[in-house]
Amino acid sequence: MRVDQLTIVGVGLIGGSVGLAAKSAGLAGRVVGVGRDEPTLARAQAAGAIDTYTTAAAEAARDADLVVVCTPVDRIAADVRACAAAAPARCVLTDAGSTKARLVADLAGEPRFVGSHPLAGSERRGAVNGRADLFAGRVVVVTPGPTTDLEAVAVVDRFWQALGAAVVRMDPSEHDRALAFTSHLPHAAAAALAAVTPPEWLSLTAGGFRDSTRIAAGDPALWAAIFRANKDAVLAAVDRFRGRLDEFARLLDSDDGPGLERWLLDGKRVRDALGS
Amino acid sequence: MRVDQLTIVGVGLIGGSVGLAAKSAGLAGRVVGVGRDEPTLARAQAAGAIDTYTTAAAEAARDADLVVVCTPVDRIAADVRACAAAAPARCVLTDAGSTKARLVADLAGEPRFVGSHPLAGSERRGAVNGRADLFAGRVVVVTPGPTTDLEAVAVVDRFWQALGAAVVRMDPSEHDRALAFTSHLPHAAAAALAAVTPPEWLSLTAGGFRDSTRIAAGDPALWAAIFRANKDAVLAAVDRFRGRLDEFARLLDSDDGPGLERWLLDGKRVRDALGS
Repeated sequence: MRVDQLTIVGVGLIGGSVGLAAKSAGLAGRVVGVGRDEPTLARAQAAGAIDTYTTAAAEAARDADLVVVCTPVDRIAADVRACAAAAPARCVLTDAGSTKARLVADLAGEPRFVGSHPLAGSERRGAVNGRADLFAGRVVVVTPGPTTDLEAVAVVDRFWQALGAAVVRMDPSEHDRALAFTSHLPHAAAAALAAVTPPEWLSLTAGGFRDSTRIAAGDPALWAAIFRANKDAVLAAVDRFRGRLDEFARLLDSDDGPGLERWLLDGKRVRDALGS
Repeated sequence: MRVDQLTIVGVGLIGGSVGLAAKSAGLAGRVVGVGRDEPTLARAQAAGAIDTYTTAAAEAARDADLVVVCTPVDRIAADVRACAAAAPARCVLTDAGSTKARLVADLAGEPRFVGSHPLAGSERRGAVNGRADLFAGRVVVVTPGPTTDLEAVAVVDRFWQALGAAVVRMDPSEHDRALAFTSHLPHAAAAALAAVTPPEWLSLTAGGFRDSTRIAAGDPALWAAIFRANKDAVLAAVDRFRGRLDEFARLLDSDDGPGLERWLLDGKRVRDALGS
């Protein structure tokens, strides 16, 4: 796969990595970055993630063959619309947002837009922390809706595959229900674990606490937007999690050793299935 | 520090690492392992963690200068008593258990016993996974009670320091309240996160899920015993955690973006204070 112009809107960790990966794969004649903050764009250019940049989405979309929108989930729809309005008819648009159902529904009028979610990231921020191999060996979920152009879907599949990812096709709502458990709930749990821990006891933590709270360092604004964009599925996942904790408290309160072991074994079986 | 005979009761990951570390530091003339299962003891000997072994605690304690009991928390008191009854008067005894208040109270009649908790471990098991540097740079909490012999406390301090650890002195009950937050609650949360995740969605997990559930792979029997030995403090920590999740659900349900950001920031601040 090769395009003349790849436009990346939002050149943070994910957008910067898309640029680095695309350039490393020789995928685009030129990579144009779009953002609201010139110093951020200049740093992304210096890091080699983009060739040129502008703060005007329409200008960056005018000659684009492929647009990847990597802004926070609450800005993606507007950014896609702004680019689609200025882009040539051949242009395909996709995104890298963590939630898909509402976005795909909102953009049902843009058949050349195809929802994507690369399951890759970091608690770090910015294109300077970007990596050309961020998507290598990772899963990217591609979530077409009923009105999505099939040719556009094929282009987006090939794009992520060219960056080394394995593409999985899913219904946008099923994606959101799954990610509520595999990503959003763990984030809320990590943040809650960290918040309830009295700071004077942090010196008494070891690897377990460190691992289980690592993602709590993520950006609050980004995550608040993700939770809100997937409200119903996240609330359902939190509910199931609280029910599971209630069961734990009941077993412990009644000093039920075998019951606690079985409760722990249920979790161990799932975790062991994942591998280290 | 140097003793003629170090006896280790329970030669799994922690006991095996104590042996490897003590031998690597030239701390003991001989290291004697005690356990219930001969093949396990033979593997620990082959791994270089112990010099000789026996299944009879009294025999291994008879000439011991220092006994370290590394069995599961529900067996430590009995193992300490069995060794103390056979050991010479000079012998000092300690342990490596994750909970301290009940143990130190139960063993108030053994003034040469000093409670210890090395904040080091792994979801792996067995002396074959032991490491001579497992305690290097780690914190070991030493928890004397009102009847503990002060000379014995000094010996135990020096022992862990000789293995490279930083010793922190704490009241046994305060230790247990702290560890309920820094270790036991994170374990329960990880196990609950893993258990509520439908296995067919495990392919949609990334590093966040992997990190936040890693400790769920731990041994259910060991952990059930730890929870039961620290029941009140763990129930209190779970209660506070559930309250925090309730707050999250309320904020999300009412679509309170700024409130969610503040809620997330509270967790981020604590996690950032810990460093990566």
